Amino acid sequence: MKVAVDAMGGDHAPFEVVKGAISVAQEDSLTDILLVGIEHEIQSILHASGSVPPNIHIVGAPEIIGMGDHPAQAIRRKRNSSLVVAGDLVLRGAADATFSAGNTGAAMAVAMLDIGRIPGVDRPAIAATLPTRAGGVLLVDAGANVDCSPQNLLQFALLGSIYAERVLHLASPSVGLLNIGAEPGKGNDLTKATFELLSKCGLNFYGNVEGKGVFEHEVDVVVCDGFAGNILLKSGEGVAELILQILAQELVFEHGDRDHMLATLHKTLTRIDYADTGGAPLLGVNGVSVIGHGRSKARAIANGIKVARDGAASGYVQAIKTALSTEVGV
Amino acid sequence: MKVAVDAMGGDHAPFEVVKGAISVAQEDSLTDILLVGIEHEIQSILHASGSVPPNIHIVGAPEIIGMGDHPAQAIRRKRNSSLVVAGDLVLRGAADATFSAGNTGAAMAVAMLDIGRIPGVDRPAIAATLPTRAGGVLLVDAGANVDCSPQNLLQFALLGSIYAERVLHLASPSVGLLNIGAEPGKGNDLTKATFELLSKCGLNFYGNVEGKGVFEHEVDVVVCDGFAGNILLKSGEGVAELILQILAQELVFEHGDRDHMLATLHKTLTRIDYADTGGAPLLGVNGVSVIGHGRSKARAIANGIKVARDGAASGYVQAIKTALSTEVGV
Repeated sequence: MKVAVDAMGGDHAPFEVVKGAISVAQEDSLTDILLVGIEHEIQSILHASGSVPPNIHIVGAPEIIGMGDHPAQAIRRKRNSSLVVAGDLVLRGAADATFSAGNTGAAMAVAMLDIGRIPGVDRPAIAATLPTRAGGVLLVDAGANVDCSPQNLLQFALLGSIYAERVLHLASPSVGLLNIGAEPGKGNDLTKATFELLSKCGLNFYGNVEGKGVFEHEVDVVVCDGFAGNILLKSGEGVAELILQILAQELVFEHGDRDHMLATLHKTLTRIDYADTGGAPLLGVNGVSVIGHGRSKARAIANGIKVARDGAASGYVQAIKTALSTEVGV
Repeated sequence: MKVAVDAMGGDHAPFEVVKGAISVAQEDSLTDILLVGIEHEIQSILHASGSVPPNIHIVGAPEIIGMGDHPAQAIRRKRNSSLVVAGDLVLRGAADATFSAGNTGAAMAVAMLDIGRIPGVDRPAIAATLPTRAGGVLLVDAGANVDCSPQNLLQFALLGSIYAERVLHLASPSVGLLNIGAEPGKGNDLTKATFELLSKCGLNFYGNVEGKGVFEHEVDVVVCDGFAGNILLKSGEGVAELILQILAQELVFEHGDRDHMLATLHKTLTRIDYADTGGAPLLGVNGVSVIGHGRSKARAIANGIKVARDGAASGYVQAIKTALSTEVGV
């Protein structure tokens, strides 16, 4: 597998991106990593790190799309940016997947406009993996589409279901509809209409799932519009930080062993912080495109690159294409 | 102040409700508590508890609306239920406020249909208080209205703002719009249109607030539709429980002092669990109506009764009436 990595994307790029890429390359000699970005900067980080694994390669791209750049304008104007060049490698078949922790909107624009959608997909969606005690839960859509139709949500269910089957190796993954009540008939106009569609679609539809049930792993795949998905993600993040701050205070006060306690809390925080545990694939795109959190450091970058690699190896893009060309009613 | 308490409402009613009422009555001799429900049941709990404070009174109501009853049907058919009779006491001026930890939908139906809306209010909204390190944040709407117009959200902002001023004693409380990006122009059709209205409404409008910012106390009042508000509440609850479970495991493993650690975690949990910290007023109703969580125990019930008492004492209902009869553009 060949993964094109946007070396210039993210708050800690290129240093942490290159570091993360090296660790994957060292661990997995069968995967080639194409570091896309400003050549001499990447080169000097590689040199400083000691021996460079033979499966690390550099693809020069002189321009950078910043975190604050307007997505559509940036990808139109900066055709030699690391993000656009990385997408182009996938489009030309020179790479099997792309990963970026840079400007999310621009990465989505490259995926949708340059790499392109799979025929039959109306709206690609971000699939985020949420932590639970019983493993990850896939949330589709985590923020790409703010206004959705029931038909869009039905497609998200199909996309998420195929991804969970292929990449997460779940047989007949259960699909839940994010809603504000468990019983059928609950919800707003969108979720009520979507419930009807999901009930007849042939997927393993579980029914409605509440925000709390998501983190109890009631289902394998949770479907929602990108507005609700983003609210769920961000408020979860806010509560996690709040609790850990309070606990740090309480426990330090009671035990006095500040360093040890903070280390324990930090370990738990990194376990719970879905944003930093890797990357979220953009499902429905005609290629594997994975988005990482802007604040990713080397460990998160490495996890994100592995998400891209595993996605490419699983063949989920082809499976979605096949499903869309044969499924009835989706 | 006189607070009518639905003694039969909630998972632990009537025992925990009566216990909570007694503790408020003992603490605050100036507040009369009218325990509404099945007389002999309330009586026997009071007797068993020892001396009954003189400011505890019983109002007989032989019927009970269960947690699973259909709200509108139940309040039509069970006119002698504790919930309906408690609402009626407010309507007749025999009580200043009502509190129930029972069937939320039925409590809302009593508030809206029996007590009635304030003229000019299109949709009453639930105002939940979320915990942050810098005090509570008011979330309006926390789940009463799943499909809303920008005009509805503008009213929620006014209702929440007046409540925060009167009951939480905040001068010119800041109002934020729950959204999936901080910059103006972000969001779905609803939030974009609402942003425009809030920008010109004369309230202290802060701008957009993300899910994470809510728990960082970026603003005093957060406005959203009831669907998004419920997702935020429930997912926050799910993440809180998940983290505490993981931490209990990790810390116990590292320290071995299981009981002490669990006590610390439990203390933190009760501090963070907004659902159990009292009650949520239904704003826009022509009287003070406060809803508690179904699983409330005595401490939460007592807090909920105090929310009702303080709401009545603050005169926020009258303030909303005055504002709606004089405000332009709301």
